[in-house]
Amino acid sequence: MASIFTKIIKREIPAYIVAEDEQNIAFLDIRPLQKGHTLVVPKVEVDHLFDLAEEDHRALWSFARKIGRAIQQTMPGERVASVVLGMEVPHAHIHLIPIYRESDIRFDQKPLEFSSVQMEEIAAEIRAAVEE
Amino acid sequence: MASIFTKIIKREIPAYIVAEDEQNIAFLDIRPLQKGHTLVVPKVEVDHLFDLAEEDHRALWSFARKIGRAIQQTMPGERVASVVLGMEVPHAHIHLIPIYRESDIRFDQKPLEFSSVQMEEIAAEIRAAVEE
Repeated sequence: MASIFTKIIKREIPAYIVAEDEQNIAFLDIRPLQKGHTLVVPKVEVDHLFDLAEEDHRALWSFARKIGRAIQQTMPGERVASVVLGMEVPHAHIHLIPIYRESDIRFDQKPLEFSSVQMEEIAAEIRAAVEE
Repeated sequence: MASIFTKIIKREIPAYIVAEDEQNIAFLDIRPLQKGHTLVVPKVEVDHLFDLAEEDHRALWSFARKIGRAIQQTMPGERVASVVLGMEVPHAHIHLIPIYRESDIRFDQKPLEFSSVQMEEIAAEIRAAVEE
């Protein structure tokens, strides 16, 4: 069965898409730990990031680096943390999360709530910075 | 002033080194959140990972992927999480942390304690798997 991320990639379910290239896609996490919390996902459906072929792994991190810089420019936070847990969805992905302090990374915390209008505004801001 | 990681790279202070190549080094975190918690560090001293030149960034993740697979093979845990916070030491680094669940990633938790003999055994186990 296609993962929820594959469904997003195929536009079968909607998402706040931030950027996309041939191999990868980035969209907002709908359960954001911080404003601008973004998921970076390879289009090929592998379970664990380390299962990716080396070339695909590199391409993913190059793409993530570009998105991370755009988040850094546009979102509040001292740093953009990159986190790969590999637990939640069996389709490898990188969390990019703007943080002020280490303890901002708490996956058991209650996510922030934004309206869909706000989410689209956040995505648009990051998207504009990626495209620059 | 040289960062603590640069001092490790120059062998000015000791560390439980797991692997090294021309551009990168991996050693155990002395404040491990889990058994086998390893830091992967580029030898060039940049503050933030996204500041690395694209080629160095790629090389770092290729190296981290190799170490992550070795940790996966040898240490307890379901997955090896990759975490870049960029907060603690102003020299970019990746945490590789074997985890069972998302909530195992808690940088405000008390680190585990291992004796130096145990730490060296852990490093040796991972090192052997990297070299295979």
